[in-house]
Amino acid sequence: MNKLLIVGTVAFDAIETPFGKTDKILGGAGTFIGLSASHFNIKSAIVSVVGGDFPQEYLDLLTARNIDISGLEIVKEGKTFFWSGKYHNDLNSRDTLVTELNTLADFNPVVPQNFTNADVVMLGNLHPLVQSSVLDQMTEKPKLVVLDTMNFWMDCALPELLDVIKRVDVITINDEEARQLSGEYSLVKAAAKIHGMGPKYVVIKKGEHGALLFHKKEVFFAPALPLEEVFDPTGAGDTFAGGFAGFITQSENISFENMKSAIIHGSNLASFCVEKFGTERMLSLKKEEVNQRLKQFKALTQFEIELQ
Amino acid sequence: MNKLLIVGTVAFDAIETPFGKTDKILGGAGTFIGLSASHFNIKSAIVSVVGGDFPQEYLDLLTARNIDISGLEIVKEGKTFFWSGKYHNDLNSRDTLVTELNTLADFNPVVPQNFTNADVVMLGNLHPLVQSSVLDQMTEKPKLVVLDTMNFWMDCALPELLDVIKRVDVITINDEEARQLSGEYSLVKAAAKIHGMGPKYVVIKKGEHGALLFHKKEVFFAPALPLEEVFDPTGAGDTFAGGFAGFITQSENISFENMKSAIIHGSNLASFCVEKFGTERMLSLKKEEVNQRLKQFKALTQFEIELQ
Repeated sequence: MNKLLIVGTVAFDAIETPFGKTDKILGGAGTFIGLSASHFNIKSAIVSVVGGDFPQEYLDLLTARNIDISGLEIVKEGKTFFWSGKYHNDLNSRDTLVTELNTLADFNPVVPQNFTNADVVMLGNLHPLVQSSVLDQMTEKPKLVVLDTMNFWMDCALPELLDVIKRVDVITINDEEARQLSGEYSLVKAAAKIHGMGPKYVVIKKGEHGALLFHKKEVFFAPALPLEEVFDPTGAGDTFAGGFAGFITQSENISFENMKSAIIHGSNLASFCVEKFGTERMLSLKKEEVNQRLKQFKALTQFEIELQ
Repeated sequence: MNKLLIVGTVAFDAIETPFGKTDKILGGAGTFIGLSASHFNIKSAIVSVVGGDFPQEYLDLLTARNIDISGLEIVKEGKTFFWSGKYHNDLNSRDTLVTELNTLADFNPVVPQNFTNADVVMLGNLHPLVQSSVLDQMTEKPKLVVLDTMNFWMDCALPELLDVIKRVDVITINDEEARQLSGEYSLVKAAAKIHGMGPKYVVIKKGEHGALLFHKKEVFFAPALPLEEVFDPTGAGDTFAGGFAGFITQSENISFENMKSAIIHGSNLASFCVEKFGTERMLSLKKEEVNQRLKQFKALTQFEIELQ
């Protein structure tokens, strides 16, 4: 079975949307990536850190999904990373209410020995130095390295971010961040500039407007599934990335054609994530539901055309 | 050869974008619809009105494309409808600088006798009473009636707009207008409410984010082609509608499957429209370019997927 190494936060989130609010619930990029990737027939491990306040129940929930947590450091006297945010009425923007780094502030990632030869590495959104440190620990060159990041690191750790971006094959980034990183408004031009920074593949996430995959002059577009109601967008981008990386790991195929399928799998899994608060929908998700919705993606996008 | 009847403005536009500005140039919904539909093997006619200031050269340009202008009234002592607008830097929004209705203020549309049995009627964005009047003049029930409209009529002629919407098969409308018309933020819910107003097919245009086609529980999505540069969005929505209606007219097939192809043809033609000011690109457009880009649409959206 192929191996996927994931680095990313395992955290507490408190979320408020127009539909309600939660107390501290399970969250974090590493968590969403791991839960999403667990829908594929792979071995995965999460490298992260939590505090002594992190419930055993949440750890069990990860291991029950065949996710190796030997690289998940537990700092007994510390507290788990906590993020709280409130979404605006359109759910397309949000305000961060609280960010408590806690144990994440001094995090030194340690890759479990049996994952230093992982086939695929998924670097979730974290400090670029943490992402680089994980790559430094790989004893074999991974078939594919995928990196997710955000504007925060462009603002406060750009040199370190550019260093790690050089080392990855695929970058996933949202449209505004792609514009910020490249200084180009046109996403086609932005992707070309980001190619020049290192990654052969550039995935631009546009939320409810879908995602674009660029590779040299080729481009592929996956829509987001039109939903009656988006309940909570938290973790959708990470779920997308986890589905992408999970499928690539399972299929052992890094061709552009296969990446198209990976993008669809990622979009499909993300479409479930937003239906309930936090990880709730991902935890109840069944294989039949996943397959049913893959068929909907096909119906949504496939057409016949005759040239004129 | 099948017949398409078009009603819509034939106008002067003066446009300012971050890339430059124009003097008074050829514009208007009817013009863009007509030029776009002329890429199909059909007979079309435009019902509209212009003033004595409208150049013979522009009339010749329409007839050269096999567009019947016997329903294009020329009010010798009047002036042609004039619109002027300035786009913001992101090209997604614009300010209207000037609207001079001129001859359009008293426009009574007269459908040419040989088009009162048109196969397809495309009601371009105009006062809903003008759109209704065109339908009243049809001697045979058209196979398909398509209506385009905008928020302006929702604000100032809603009852008349709802009356004509009841009578059409397909409505094309942008996302914000769909939300305004339905009172629903979710486009899935908005489409369902608009279905309830009459149209069996609801096309929601999202500009650079593509277009959605809804029919009962079915939905199809066509992306906009990612372009290096959008130069001038004026007329893109009308070009999209013209391509849609033109293809349906040519193919004589109003199945949902065929409408998917029609949406792709419309998106394809619109992708050219935005590359230059006004109608400039549409006037130079060659069949080989259209076909080449249809292949790009296929590559952009088609994928293989195996269920998990």
